[in-house]
Amino acid sequence: MMLTQAVRRAAAVRPHGMALADTDAGERRSWRQTAERIASLAAALRALGAGPGVQVATMAHNSPRHFETLLAAWWAGATLVPLNTRLAFDEIRYILAHSESRLLVTDDVFATTAARAREEVGGLGATLVLDDTRYVRACGTAPMTDACGGLETLAGIFYTGGTTGRPKGVALTHANFAFAALNMQRDLVLGPEAVYLHAAPLFHLADFGIGLGATLGAGGHSFLAQFSTPRFYERLARDDVTHLQLVPTMLATVLDAPERDDRLLARIRSVSYGAAPVSPALLARLLEAFPQARIQQFYGMTESCGASVMLAPERHVLAGELAGKLGTVGQPTAGFELRIADPATDRPVPAGEVGEIQVRGAAVMRGYWRDPDQSHQALAHGWLHSGDAGRLDDEGFLTVVDRLKDMIISGGENIYCAEVENALSTHPGVAACAVLGLPDAHWGERVHAVVVPRDGFALDAADLDAHCRTLIAGYKIPRSYDIRPAALPLSAVGKVQKNVLRAQWLARKNP
Amino acid sequence: MMLTQAVRRAAAVRPHGMALADTDAGERRSWRQTAERIASLAAALRALGAGPGVQVATMAHNSPRHFETLLAAWWAGATLVPLNTRLAFDEIRYILAHSESRLLVTDDVFATTAARAREEVGGLGATLVLDDTRYVRACGTAPMTDACGGLETLAGIFYTGGTTGRPKGVALTHANFAFAALNMQRDLVLGPEAVYLHAAPLFHLADFGIGLGATLGAGGHSFLAQFSTPRFYERLARDDVTHLQLVPTMLATVLDAPERDDRLLARIRSVSYGAAPVSPALLARLLEAFPQARIQQFYGMTESCGASVMLAPERHVLAGELAGKLGTVGQPTAGFELRIADPATDRPVPAGEVGEIQVRGAAVMRGYWRDPDQSHQALAHGWLHSGDAGRLDDEGFLTVVDRLKDMIISGGENIYCAEVENALSTHPGVAACAVLGLPDAHWGERVHAVVVPRDGFALDAADLDAHCRTLIAGYKIPRSYDIRPAALPLSAVGKVQKNVLRAQWLARKNP
Repeated sequence: MMLTQAVRRAAAVRPHGMALADTDAGERRSWRQTAERIASLAAALRALGAGPGVQVATMAHNSPRHFETLLAAWWAGATLVPLNTRLAFDEIRYILAHSESRLLVTDDVFATTAARAREEVGGLGATLVLDDTRYVRACGTAPMTDACGGLETLAGIFYTGGTTGRPKGVALTHANFAFAALNMQRDLVLGPEAVYLHAAPLFHLADFGIGLGATLGAGGHSFLAQFSTPRFYERLARDDVTHLQLVPTMLATVLDAPERDDRLLARIRSVSYGAAPVSPALLARLLEAFPQARIQQFYGMTESCGASVMLAPERHVLAGELAGKLGTVGQPTAGFELRIADPATDRPVPAGEVGEIQVRGAAVMRGYWRDPDQSHQALAHGWLHSGDAGRLDDEGFLTVVDRLKDMIISGGENIYCAEVENALSTHPGVAACAVLGLPDAHWGERVHAVVVPRDGFALDAADLDAHCRTLIAGYKIPRSYDIRPAALPLSAVGKVQKNVLRAQWLARKNP
Repeated sequence: MMLTQAVRRAAAVRPHGMALADTDAGERRSWRQTAERIASLAAALRALGAGPGVQVATMAHNSPRHFETLLAAWWAGATLVPLNTRLAFDEIRYILAHSESRLLVTDDVFATTAARAREEVGGLGATLVLDDTRYVRACGTAPMTDACGGLETLAGIFYTGGTTGRPKGVALTHANFAFAALNMQRDLVLGPEAVYLHAAPLFHLADFGIGLGATLGAGGHSFLAQFSTPRFYERLARDDVTHLQLVPTMLATVLDAPERDDRLLARIRSVSYGAAPVSPALLARLLEAFPQARIQQFYGMTESCGASVMLAPERHVLAGELAGKLGTVGQPTAGFELRIADPATDRPVPAGEVGEIQVRGAAVMRGYWRDPDQSHQALAHGWLHSGDAGRLDDEGFLTVVDRLKDMIISGGENIYCAEVENALSTHPGVAACAVLGLPDAHWGERVHAVVVPRDGFALDAADLDAHCRTLIAGYKIPRSYDIRPAALPLSAVGKVQKNVLRAQWLARKNP
């Protein structure tokens, strides 16, 4: 209940301060108004069946109404199930059923989806559309008292996209969110003067967690329904944005945009990013474009209710004693412990060795919803098993190497595909490559590389072998190559589809 | 368990950084050393009977050993019972028995007390002296794994001095301490570069809570066993202190000291205080003496695991829009809600009206140890009843008016003794005064004032009545006066003993 409490505190300490901005719609509501709307909206949700022990799903783009609805569902005592707006209907149906959602709140864009879901998903009793007059009326309902759920009450089920198998529902308590919000508030310095731009989608904890931190700090919220550089600069200008979180490619896009306005960038106090490191070249541009900002990187996952590792602002420098850590994701933030464990034994490995990244801390999930086996596996020995491979340096800075499932075990040795790919890609004749493990009678698995040569280069296995030998250990060098002119098969988000490559190899082997 | 986790994180992210300084003893231990000692010490405490569900009492002045022992007891899974070093033996015996403490750790000063307690308190099975060779050996024991108690596990029982009745044991969970530590870390900006001087005693949550915040931030600790200005400046010089918490009178003492060293004060980044407001004159001196420091005031209590209300640094100014709040204790900190309630109905009163200060939040205690009645009363309707009287202004800033038990109810009106005392004390002829409620057949209670005239002044009731009438409402004016040359009876900490005055009055009435 700490976060609904934060709404009331914000209304008490900053009653007239801006809470939620939607200047397009002519809305810029104060914390007092926002607290009143949330209490009313909670009553309306309650009338639609929301309450303690009830899941309320949302499927909507970023907007003040979406954000206040999430807080109102908590106020009513319900559990949040925010859906990824990019899901296919089959996945939506699965998640609504699996989470036992009773109410689905959408914006106009997903109103038809909601209607269809209501027909097809048993148990889904009601829908509500944020852009409707029904919603406007809901905000005028007689307010209810905060349900004030306890810290160990289930607060949300956030489904993570399973590239293999069904999505898993990460079950998070109010304690998880309270700690996550406190961590964000502290690490991003989210005070009453902060205005955070929700540029990433609200259904991602990376964004929602910062939103909660901003609420704890009684700061303001600005929303981008969909990213574009004109809209981005418009929000900065109209809503007095001070805090940004974007992935590095978006940061570069923002700096390259024709709408770029250095006066607006100079007002930014905090730039955080994740999902990929920034290059020294991009950092140089960031430092110049954001002269007032603390720049920091986060690494985290839904299962830890957001960030658990941070590369601090003082490490975002190009020279001096503190430089040289840009390729890492940093150190555990206060409230988390971090270790690298051997995936086979689940025991810590020495500094410098690659293993599974594992964290523990008060923000770590209690488990996966209705999935005791996966929960048990993910939380074995009290540590959250990230499924990511990484290593710590002597100073405890973490480098993320790869997804663990991209690890090949050959003759008892762990080989990370990314390491081999990095070695191959430094060959001047390699345009693209992908490394995978193929079944091998003798070694268990063996390293196989698919390589696309650069135009005009004639590559052969001996060439590539010789190149790799200077860079990585012998047992990591590919045992076989598929050198081909065709592009690698990519997923919608631009990742190499290794399962397709594996299927192609199997088809050729057993035609 | 978040705080023992913080010890391991500090050892991971700042292994060689200073953790605990005791430069007098030639000790300045790193976080890696400290984490190792705590794990060993925990094993030694476990061998002495400490463990989950077991209370470990401490009675010692501030020292690195005392602090590491508190953390080691948590590491062993035990519950802390830190005793006030000023207690009489009778109180010590009561608390040890009531808390069911099994182990008592003291420094040399209290070794005799410990030996006597062990004879007289059943259940107290062992003692350990911090200055002993046995302790040195304990720090070399084979380390144990952190017991990792859950968030809702009992972490401490802190006894509050009852001016009426027996001390009450405030039962605090690991969640309480985790939230309190996160709040302190955020509000005091306790990062890895911070060194906090433990000037107030460790058995006070005001000090211990900041110590936990500093630990979360992987910062350093410096200790003052007993306050004196030479020792204070010595610690600043030797331990590179950056963070201070002192009461206003001590702040003034520090500035007036012949040892004053402006170079050392200029290094301080944070000065916090509590228990009393600072005057504009003292603030002017503080702003000059501490040019780099954030100056802030906290209001809190043991029952809320420390501070819940804060007057922020930006309010510590003498002029401008943000000035004018120095007489208040500020606004609720993030994580707390605050209200003023009518003591009779327990319902909120409008801004400007005096009532009981009540807070709620995740750091609030679960109750008093083995005292369901007092727990129920203190936490009625989900709010912590502070027992303090206060009022909120239009901007939600809290002024602490008085202790609630110093409230007189006369003819249905609430009259706060402090208000009447403030009025009386502005009379030029009044040297000292105390106001109390006496039983009255008609009004329930009536206002009675004991007044000590200033030398050379002849005071009478009519004089005082006329004076008060210009300052406070008629129903608040004393109905009777006891004007006497004798000094008022004072307690050891300098508070007027109203119970003595009441007894004197009763003795005179019924001799």
